[in-house]
Amino acid sequence: MTSNRRTFFKKTGLGVTALAATPLLGKAIAPEKKAEFAPRKIPYELGMAGYTFVKFPLEDTLRMTQRVGITHLCIKDFHLPLDSSEKDIEQFHQKCAEYGIKGYAVGPIYMRNVDQVNQAFEYAKRVGVRMIVGVPNYEMLPLVDEKVKEYDFRYAIHNHGPGDELYPIPSVIHEKIKNLDRRIGMCHDVGHTWRYGYDPVKMTLEYGDRIYDMHIKDVTEASSKGTSCEMGRGIIDFPALFDAVARTGYSGKCSIEFEKDNTDPLAGIAECVGYYNAVHDMM
Amino acid sequence: MTSNRRTFFKKTGLGVTALAATPLLGKAIAPEKKAEFAPRKIPYELGMAGYTFVKFPLEDTLRMTQRVGITHLCIKDFHLPLDSSEKDIEQFHQKCAEYGIKGYAVGPIYMRNVDQVNQAFEYAKRVGVRMIVGVPNYEMLPLVDEKVKEYDFRYAIHNHGPGDELYPIPSVIHEKIKNLDRRIGMCHDVGHTWRYGYDPVKMTLEYGDRIYDMHIKDVTEASSKGTSCEMGRGIIDFPALFDAVARTGYSGKCSIEFEKDNTDPLAGIAECVGYYNAVHDMM
Repeated sequence: MTSNRRTFFKKTGLGVTALAATPLLGKAIAPEKKAEFAPRKIPYELGMAGYTFVKFPLEDTLRMTQRVGITHLCIKDFHLPLDSSEKDIEQFHQKCAEYGIKGYAVGPIYMRNVDQVNQAFEYAKRVGVRMIVGVPNYEMLPLVDEKVKEYDFRYAIHNHGPGDELYPIPSVIHEKIKNLDRRIGMCHDVGHTWRYGYDPVKMTLEYGDRIYDMHIKDVTEASSKGTSCEMGRGIIDFPALFDAVARTGYSGKCSIEFEKDNTDPLAGIAECVGYYNAVHDMM
Repeated sequence: MTSNRRTFFKKTGLGVTALAATPLLGKAIAPEKKAEFAPRKIPYELGMAGYTFVKFPLEDTLRMTQRVGITHLCIKDFHLPLDSSEKDIEQFHQKCAEYGIKGYAVGPIYMRNVDQVNQAFEYAKRVGVRMIVGVPNYEMLPLVDEKVKEYDFRYAIHNHGPGDELYPIPSVIHEKIKNLDRRIGMCHDVGHTWRYGYDPVKMTLEYGDRIYDMHIKDVTEASSKGTSCEMGRGIIDFPALFDAVARTGYSGKCSIEFEKDNTDPLAGIAECVGYYNAVHDMM
């Protein structure tokens, strides 16, 4: 991405609408002068949610992730099981490194009882990440509150929209965590939020201070019938969403979780990456 | 693409830079009000240059083109030879229709002598398109000038950058055609223009009135060493380019000609499509 690209529209202050009235008179239109100042640094980055590759082993996951230029992976247990040995973990990291990829978190991990909470925190520690994306039963929240203090980890609760009895949308999560340690926050799945009928842009602006991870995906409609699709083909207003994300000062990962075509996802993932890149080149 | 997405930035009149200074105060930030007016209609469309699929038969070409949501194809002779029979042509169109795709032009076709010019115009007529993307030897231009009148076709001369002795960039084409019938114009290959060291944005603004087709591709550097890459990963300022294209009133196709990974191009093509879609959603 070049530095002058994303500043073009800002510098000129002219959108296409304003310019469209200008008739083309042969060679009479002078080229625009390019912006000379540096673009604003976006403090967050694109990532990959491991779940995207639920049908693939690690090597294929890394190959496809590398191909679209993503270097941060949220590790799912089907690629690195919760009971992995130290050697398994070492080999996992080595394999990731071969593709220039680094795990930045683990999850989502469901935690229905004390053992599962304990296991997840120990797992994250052994894997060497500082964030768990989790789905704790409500009665586990006090224990999670202790654990984040003990381990000094962030714990991002994942919202799953329609059918999720515990955490369908960020406002529900917020109600449950607002009085807990601030290291407990959420992994905002913007697709599931819209599938529950709530605008993820508004949710981002309202609860952004507790959003620590994101699953980005477009969806076909704002109901339980909505399904995952390529960014830009669905109903989510991504330019507005990322504008909101930037406004909240978010500095985590925007991880692609692409669930369409899950036995052949690369083309759809790549389309999402192109969309994300263009939105950010124009911010 | 939703109607309110592309109008968000225009309506608010606020870029991320302006907003970034606003601190996040819990739930204090009110969601932005969405734009209510209709977005500006972009009069041009995404297309696919047949050359992208130089290593693939027609069926694979159509399958991949359909998958990325493109419905307009510039037909290359390796998919429909110049000496195709009426039946071949009928079967070609039928196969395209099965994938919801329509040929909008033929070419690029090199025309070094009278027979090749005659053959190309007859071919285009039999195929049923109204535009030829061509590369005529200079001495063929008077004949091409007669033919466009006779057939009432558009004839778009393709520029090929470094190594192209005839038509490296639009300004060279323009010099050759400026006094010929206005149905003779150019197919602006923006990647090859930059590879020749000329900014395709400036070329678009200067010669847009004679640009009738486009090959869009990003390139790694502005020299003959530059190679094709995914849109957004190279040096072309596509937001500025499409702003320029829109300003000229262009109403043709912006056809992806992706030359990287030509035995496995789908992921790269998809990334280009995502990039194109986002730029246009934000225009």
